Formats: sequence, C-alpha cells, structure tokens
Amino acid sequence: MPTNPRVTLGIIGAGQLARMTLQAAIPLDLPIRLLADRPDDGAARVAADVVVGSPDDPAAVTAFAAGCEVVTFDHELVPPQCLQALVDAGACLRPSDATMRLAQNKRLQRETFARLGLPVPAFTFFDNDEASATTIQAIGVPIVIKAARGGYDGRGVWVLRSETEARETIRTLRARGIDLIAESWVPIEREFAILVARRPNGESVVYPLVETVQIDGICREILYPPRVAEPLIDQAEEIARIVAEAAGVVGILAVELFLAEGRLIVNEIATRPHNSGHYSIEGCVTSQFEQHLRAVLDWPLGATTPTAPAVATVNVLGGPENRNPVEALPSALAIEGVHVHLYGKQPRPGRKLGHVTVCHTDLQAARERARAAAACLTGEPIPTVRSERS
Amino acid sequence: MPTNPRVTLGIIGAGQLARMTLQAAIPLDLPIRLLADRPDDGAARVAADVVVGSPDDPAAVTAFAAGCEVVTFDHELVPPQCLQALVDAGACLRPSDATMRLAQNKRLQRETFARLGLPVPAFTFFDNDEASATTIQAIGVPIVIKAARGGYDGRGVWVLRSETEARETIRTLRARGIDLIAESWVPIEREFAILVARRPNGESVVYPLVETVQIDGICREILYPPRVAEPLIDQAEEIARIVAEAAGVVGILAVELFLAEGRLIVNEIATRPHNSGHYSIEGCVTSQFEQHLRAVLDWPLGATTPTAPAVATVNVLGGPENRNPVEALPSALAIEGVHVHLYGKQPRPGRKLGHVTVCHTDLQAARERARAAAACLTGEPIPTVRSERS
Repeated sequence: MPTNPRVTLGIIGAGQLARMTLQAAIPLDLPIRLLADRPDDGAARVAADVVVGSPDDPAAVTAFAAGCEVVTFDHELVPPQCLQALVDAGACLRPSDATMRLAQNKRLQRETFARLGLPVPAFTFFDNDEASATTIQAIGVPIVIKAARGGYDGRGVWVLRSETEARETIRTLRARGIDLIAESWVPIEREFAILVARRPNGESVVYPLVETVQIDGICREILYPPRVAEPLIDQAEEIARIVAEAAGVVGILAVELFLAEGRLIVNEIATRPHNSGHYSIEGCVTSQFEQHLRAVLDWPLGATTPTAPAVATVNVLGGPENRNPVEALPSALAIEGVHVHLYGKQPRPGRKLGHVTVCHTDLQAARERARAAAACLTGEPIPTVRSERS
Repeated sequence: MPTNPRVTLGIIGAGQLARMTLQAAIPLDLPIRLLADRPDDGAARVAADVVVGSPDDPAAVTAFAAGCEVVTFDHELVPPQCLQALVDAGACLRPSDATMRLAQNKRLQRETFARLGLPVPAFTFFDNDEASATTIQAIGVPIVIKAARGGYDGRGVWVLRSETEARETIRTLRARGIDLIAESWVPIEREFAILVARRPNGESVVYPLVETVQIDGICREILYPPRVAEPLIDQAEEIARIVAEAAGVVGILAVELFLAEGRLIVNEIATRPHNSGHYSIEGCVTSQFEQHLRAVLDWPLGATTPTAPAVATVNVLGGPENRNPVEALPSALAIEGVHVHLYGKQPRPGRKLGHVTVCHTDLQAARERARAAAACLTGEPIPTVRSERS
C-alpha cells in the first residue's frame, strides 16, 4: 500500500541490495521508499512504497529525495550531475556525494589510498596517448588496464601480456573517451573482503574478514573463516577503518583486498552493502543490511560477531539456458541447512540472481552444501569441492 | 507495486504473523497476496500486494481465494461460514477447514486429545444450566471455565474458587450464548510450547521445546533451553507429532503445555505460526515463518536445529501511555546482540506490539538483554531477572 507522507528513508535504486535492505527494515518498522527504474526491479516487486523514475535523471532524484528525510543508495553508479542536484536541493545523503564520488572512481581511490600509505599496486594514469609507451615500460608487463569509472563484475578490466597489445588497447579505449588507470599486474594468491559500518559521528564497527572466491572477475563464494594468517586479519581491519575514515563513509563500506607474495593489497571499495557481506544475514549477529540502516539513520551500531564457526555463501549466477532459479527452489531447499536468497531478477547468463548461505561448524561442509544448492538453482551439475585446507 | 495475476500464496489476515511471513517470503521470491481488514494493518503496511476486505465476509474471502493457488491464515478466527464458503469454492486451504475448526474450538480439542490418550485436565461441557451444579461438584473447586471459542491472551478464561461463584458465572456466560467448557484447576509449575511443521504428505519436523513465561494469561517470554527433565522433552515431542497428525495440519502447529505435579498436560493448540515460535527467527536454522511457507507449499521442510546454546525472546506489550515502541528503537538497539521485531501496530495497553530476541551462550544473559530492550521499547523501568537456575 503506497503511502504519501514524507518517509524516514529513501533508497535510490531497487536491485537486490535495496531488496535485502527492505527485508531488514520490516522488523524495525522503518518505512522505506524506493526510486526504481522499472516497476519490476527486484526490490520494487516486494516494496509497499515505490516511485518509478530514473536514478540518472536529476529531476527525478531530487523530487524523490524531497519526500525522504535521509537518502541512501542501492548502487554507486548515480551520475555526478544527479549527486550534485541532490546536494543543491539540500538532500541528506548518506553516504555523502564526496564518498559516492570516491566509490565511483578507481583513479581517485588509488590516489587516496596511496596518500594514506595503504598497500596498493604500482599505478599510473594517462593524460595523453604519448605518455602510454613510457608508462607501460615503467610498470612493465603483464599490465592491468582499468576503466576509472563504471566497471563491475570483471567488466572494465584488461590484463595485457605485451607492450604492443597494451599500447593498442590503451589507444582504442582512450579513443572511446574512457578514463584509464594502469597498474602493475599482481600475482593474486587469494582475495578477501572486509566490511566496516560507520555512523555520521565517526563511530564504526568492523565485520570479520572473509575470503572471496572470484572466477572471471565475478565473486562466486564468500568464506568465513578466511584462510589467512592472524596478523593479516588485524592489518585488514586496520585498513578497513582507515579507508572508512578517509572516505568519510556513512553506512556500510566494503574493502576488497588481494593477497600477493604474502602481503595484503587494497583493490577497490564499495560504499554500500556489498556482495561480500551477504554471508552476514545469517552469519553475523547484525546483518550488513540492518547495520546499513542503523548507520545511515545514526542509530547505535550492532554486534558483528559471527553466529557460527564457519559460514559459506555461494552466488547463484544465471546459466546459459536462462532458467529461473525459482523453478528449482524446492530441490535446493531439500539440502540441509541452506538459506536461499533469490533476488527476483530476470535470468540472464552470468547475472547474479541470488545466493545461498550455510552456517556450520566446518567450512568445508558449509561450502559443499551451499555449492550444491546453488548448482541446483542454476541447473548446473553439482560441483565437488576439493579440500584445500590440508 | 500491486500485481494482478494469480499468486502462489494468499494469506487471510494481515497481522504480525502475516508480516513476519512476508519477510520470510522475500528471499524465496515467493509472491504473497494479503487479505487485510484495513490498509494500515501491520502486514498490509509492508506488503506489495494487498486486497482490503473483511476475513469475516464469505464473498470477500472467496473472491480473494480465487486469485491464489494456496490459501493460508494469519489467525484462526475465520468464521465457520467463511471456511465453508472457501471449501465450496474449491480453494486449496492449508491448513484445511477441518484443522481450522479444531483450532477454533477448545471443546473439540479436549475431546480429540482425550480420545488420543494425551494428558489433559479433567473436563466437561454444559449442555444445559441444570447440569452445571453436578459438574462443578464432580470437578471440584477451584474450577476453570473457558469459552470454547474465540478466547486468546487470557481472554475467555475464568478461574473460580467457590461453587456459588462458579454457578453464577456459568449462568451469566451461558445466558450470553457462550459455549463453555469446565476443567479442573491445574497447579501449573511451568508452561512450555512446542512447534511442529507438517507437509500435506504427513512428513513433519518438530522444533525444540521452549519454556513460556505467562503473566495474566499473556505470553511474556520464550526461553530456550527449557527448564525441564529430558524425558519430558521426549514426551513433548511425541505429543506434538500425535497432535499434528490427528489435526491433519498442513503448516505450523503449536502445542501449549503445562507442567503440573511433575507431569505434562496439553493445554491448547494453534494451527499457524505462533508467538511461542518467534524465537526461531534467529534461534533456529529455519524460522517458523519460512517453515510454514515450505509446509503449505509442499516443499521440503528445513532443519529446526537451534543456532545458539540459549535463546530468549521477550514480548513488547503496549504500556499504559500508548507510547509507540518505534520512538525508543535507537535506545533498544544500543543493547548488545538484540534483534528487535516491531509489528507496526497501533499501541494499546497490553497489546503485543513486537518482540526482542537474543541468542547467547547463557540463557540468563540472553534473557536480561532481551528484557532490558523490551522494557526500553515500552518505556517501563528495566527489570532485573533473578537467577532461577540455582
């Protein structure tokens, strides 16, 4: 039942993050309004209060924000002109426009993290085509070229093995007007992520470090506890706090980290609930979605303690046959202890359609069950997880 | 965004049980339609698909049911003529009309349980005023008089200490057309509840036995583990399975039990998610709400294993000042580890407005935190829980 009075919180965007945030808002009796691009967006389909309008349209976002005491975001791809329009209209943005601009720009992130003395790969920018040859030589091959803005799930990243290839790619991308950064290739052993939640007054809580398993640049699994030495866990927590403070984030911030040659390296950040935090719905005392609500509304933050010795989350990606995971839901639910989360999205190959979480005393057992349920939902053969602990 | 096509599941009623069921349906991508008495009913306020209409109106319920593949219930107070109209219209009712009639009628419950050989208090009925004197003498005082239908939260129950009082009360109530049962007064030491979920094919799972703390006939606290000897836990589970089978329930069934003179006695049942099962949202692998959905849709049932060594749930009841618990939400959330659930209902003294759950290694600690948060929400002084374990 749509309601018209001013609401406490508005979310720009109506994807799965907004959907899971809505779910977390029900027990808090917190009315939320969504700005949805389409009425069948994942979150719009389960929301009581939806405004349909483009998050890319300054007029639409400012009209939407006028009805909300606080505005937060489902994704960071809100165009700068919309952020500016929101600021000009006096909207209470959490996170702020400055934080959003940092999250949108990998170049700005690299510069910021380097200035803070955080571990980052050697990197540089291209202000003209002529600079590229020198740059490539300085960084060496393999070289990683990234679009400074707009990439996600492995899109907007190119790994090039020769200087010729690199020069050619850079020329082509720059000709298309894409702002690029170049980085030295890092021999990634493992990947990790860590969430931090921060209130307007700077109070913050850090979540447990998790290991993320990526295939083709897309996160496939989230594993707690992470396979990493204790001192690196402490270091990851310190990095998370430093980044959250520097970003001035209000709400959830996720830091993606590489482990390479025994060292942690900061990859990139997101300033919203993040895929790497989905394990927290069942796996932590306070889920990242409830925590985001607490933080953006300036309420006390919740405990981030794990609820089980081991938690595995496996993403459900669209298979080649565009099968809707809902069809296999009963079979997936037959696997003991699985928590299935479907996002109500149209199936497309490779699209994140849901995730499955299992809490257990043993990570291997949790992972096997979550993988089996995810495979069931996408119609893939059920994979076996070889033990990587021994 | 309301949708019009036929939906998988419809719920008659839009109170807190429907609200928490909706929350559980989001991750399963299960579209639910509600029949709400009023557009501001607790569940209607957070639902995307609501039909406003009276659950007491046969035409409204049958029109509603025509748009739903399966129909379930938020409460058991659906009048018999509505149940009959639904049956006549060919609606797929889960639980069935027969199960609902049993849940609605304490007299039928007593007869059924006695026939099954389950432990019940001595009881009888009044088919005429003359019978009452003999009956009272046979049962003795104190005597418990109950309305066979329609009572809840302590309403519809009278405990009478003298034969004269009893006769007078029975005459008055019968003159108002109330169908009564009389039972011997049981010296209740403790109260317990147990949930069972059952599929159409008879497959069932039992939840852990919990202790319930009642004040003035209203459930105030739900505690796991219960303070009871192991053999009684086994007996409670057996009772739950026998009752579920006899009731032919599909969905969740709750059995309320008394402990008196070292023996378990069956009090009454509910054939829907139940207050005594709210602890399962965080306290069991599968919440009673997800389990109810699985059962009524004939999907595999989920694990009922507790997620923590101890779980305490404390109800939030409306205080004398009609204060809305939302106002104190930030203060309540400052208490570590609390899960607050507010139902979006208009405050009224004694009305169940929400509950708070805490999972912990120690029940006493869980109970203290949950009580403190509940007191905070209702504006009462924070109570102290004396240790009753030692």
